[in-house]
Amino acid sequence: MASARSPLAPERFPAMPAVAGVRLAAGAVGLRYRGRPDLTLVELAPGTTVAGLLTRSAVAGHPVLWCRSILPRGRARALVVNAGNANVFVGAQGDAAVRAEAEGAAALLDAAPEEIFIASTGIIGEPLDATRIVAALPGLRERLDPAAWQDAAEAIRTTDTFPKGAFSRTDIAGTEVTIAGIAKGSGMIQPDMATMLAFLFTDAALPATVLQPLLTAACDRSFHAITVDSDTSTSDTVLLFATQEARHPAVNRPDDPVLAGFRDALEQVAIELAQQVVRDGEGASKLIEIRVRGAVDDGSARRIGLSIANSPLVKTAVAGEDANWGRVAMAIGKAGEPVETARLGISFGGYPLARDGARVPNLDEAPVAAHLKGREVLIEVTVGSGAGQAAVWTCDLTHDYIAINADYRS
Amino acid sequence: MASARSPLAPERFPAMPAVAGVRLAAGAVGLRYRGRPDLTLVELAPGTTVAGLLTRSAVAGHPVLWCRSILPRGRARALVVNAGNANVFVGAQGDAAVRAEAEGAAALLDAAPEEIFIASTGIIGEPLDATRIVAALPGLRERLDPAAWQDAAEAIRTTDTFPKGAFSRTDIAGTEVTIAGIAKGSGMIQPDMATMLAFLFTDAALPATVLQPLLTAACDRSFHAITVDSDTSTSDTVLLFATQEARHPAVNRPDDPVLAGFRDALEQVAIELAQQVVRDGEGASKLIEIRVRGAVDDGSARRIGLSIANSPLVKTAVAGEDANWGRVAMAIGKAGEPVETARLGISFGGYPLARDGARVPNLDEAPVAAHLKGREVLIEVTVGSGAGQAAVWTCDLTHDYIAINADYRS
Repeated sequence: MASARSPLAPERFPAMPAVAGVRLAAGAVGLRYRGRPDLTLVELAPGTTVAGLLTRSAVAGHPVLWCRSILPRGRARALVVNAGNANVFVGAQGDAAVRAEAEGAAALLDAAPEEIFIASTGIIGEPLDATRIVAALPGLRERLDPAAWQDAAEAIRTTDTFPKGAFSRTDIAGTEVTIAGIAKGSGMIQPDMATMLAFLFTDAALPATVLQPLLTAACDRSFHAITVDSDTSTSDTVLLFATQEARHPAVNRPDDPVLAGFRDALEQVAIELAQQVVRDGEGASKLIEIRVRGAVDDGSARRIGLSIANSPLVKTAVAGEDANWGRVAMAIGKAGEPVETARLGISFGGYPLARDGARVPNLDEAPVAAHLKGREVLIEVTVGSGAGQAAVWTCDLTHDYIAINADYRS
Repeated sequence: MASARSPLAPERFPAMPAVAGVRLAAGAVGLRYRGRPDLTLVELAPGTTVAGLLTRSAVAGHPVLWCRSILPRGRARALVVNAGNANVFVGAQGDAAVRAEAEGAAALLDAAPEEIFIASTGIIGEPLDATRIVAALPGLRERLDPAAWQDAAEAIRTTDTFPKGAFSRTDIAGTEVTIAGIAKGSGMIQPDMATMLAFLFTDAALPATVLQPLLTAACDRSFHAITVDSDTSTSDTVLLFATQEARHPAVNRPDDPVLAGFRDALEQVAIELAQQVVRDGEGASKLIEIRVRGAVDDGSARRIGLSIANSPLVKTAVAGEDANWGRVAMAIGKAGEPVETARLGISFGGYPLARDGARVPNLDEAPVAAHLKGREVLIEVTVGSGAGQAAVWTCDLTHDYIAINADYRS
């Protein structure tokens, strides 16, 4: 199953800075994979706060149920992530495995089990042997290192063809703060072998009540604005940890103007990670950015964007380098959102193909065709006269997607 | 683009009976295709009533807008269908083209334009030359024939690899009535070249107010229970015409017990046609039937079934003959419907793979693998303890789907 590195991958993993209060280590326990790290421990300074977004799947994994139960406490001392086994759909023993991991890490770090966040990704329906994870934690603790971002990003992968990281620096009231994150995901989901996980870390001194709305807003423009194949994992998890190490004045409201830079930096890191997930989409040969404007509000614009991004007919057209605006019009129509047909416009690569509800006459297709031959395709649509807008990212749908997912056992 | 006949096609077009009051003719006007019929005229006896369901797309085609406007009158004298040009997204000239067709047919048949139903399927965004259609109608009228079902079913095709027809006979209060229908569609939609159209005809003497709820109920279990690629056409149209020729007693309520046989026969014809559309799904190599039970109601069961049927990961797994029940569990979870996880069960071909929220231990995979090698795959899921159930049909997602849709211009 080892696939070649995605043609859309960044050239290299970024040179990520340390985040005060965060130390990481990765190791190999061989839960499924042989000869590669598959277990990550992240230690967080005492006092770390946390916010999170978890899959809305009705068949959520046991680690997701655990995280959902402890998130309201808003405190974290560690994150434990394994790859190879998702610990989903295994009944009571799945909950017991999570509990054992949390208790093992808590004992090691002198923390409460309810301060240990757990994420698992990999095959569904196979019991997870937590004793091997717990046994490996002391060894990882010995090697905790604030610089081990790439090791951690490598170890949380399943079918990902490259490790994913991003960071940004900003300030809160003049005090520098850092945001760094790692992610995994290569379909929006492949429940055998994958899922989307993203972990963001900052040294900002923000309470969980401030972190949560900031994370939710950032996810709306990043992880909730991407799709590979419209499928949703049982294990999707986004967590944001704040170690409280930065010495800026206290901030108690998410809309405090002093957070403007932090908000932008968080969104930027989240978008970069989300785009890397799309760039690793199974079989992807092109990154597609879809910009929607003129919708009744931003949420409507995003839903229209995702309707286009999830359309197999749009995605196969882009794979075939076909400026098929008729399929885009179809996908706008099926979104179930308000649309002013007489104002509909569709551009590829900045070249209008349809305008005011009809095709552009006598179009010169040559520059459009040239744009579609590139690795990055831009589709812009106008759906009415409203102020709502959104950007959404996806990848094309290729023979390799079928090969990866249909020929899996062969 | 001519594709080989689907491996899931029925052996032959059925020997369809005449329906009193219905005469059909097809001819070639070369709107897009060369050397094949692309225009169909169906003449309906005076007094014919009509019911219909039209696409919910916000970018509906001009013929759909026309049909939507005249359906409330409930009367029909003719149906005109062309293939090759969908008459969608062309502004005011699109409405003018429909109007010209309706007026041309009305003048020919001594009817009102508002009694002429129009459907078009084919490329989007290209102006339709209605004068060629209107000019061809007198010639078609000369050749009207109550037996020309297959000619009509052939002429409404676009990328379909076989013509689709079905019929049933039943009685209303002891008087024999016939229901016959034709359909086209091979993706749920391919807006360049296709769409789903279905036209049902009966000699029953039923008012439009009775026909409409019967048709809506039949569609919920047929055309609304199929999917090929989750895309929705700008032109999807289902119409049911009743010529009033049968001499049974008057029926004025859709829930009149005397209609029990008619209701079943209508549903049977609709399901047969819907299944033929799935059997012609682009690139399909297997027909997949998904049965859901234990949902909170039938609508919830159908939405769960469609979530499974639309999952690219489930569809590629079936293409790969992989009994990947984890992907089915994922697709159940993402449906957004109530699910009792501890009662979840999943079977392939009658063999349980998961039961009561966990995999079946020590499973013998051989009979499951044998089932998956066949042309028809059955997936049954239990999602809780409710009384809701549904059956949904789709096809697998194969390399040929990508080839048909991505390699279209090459």
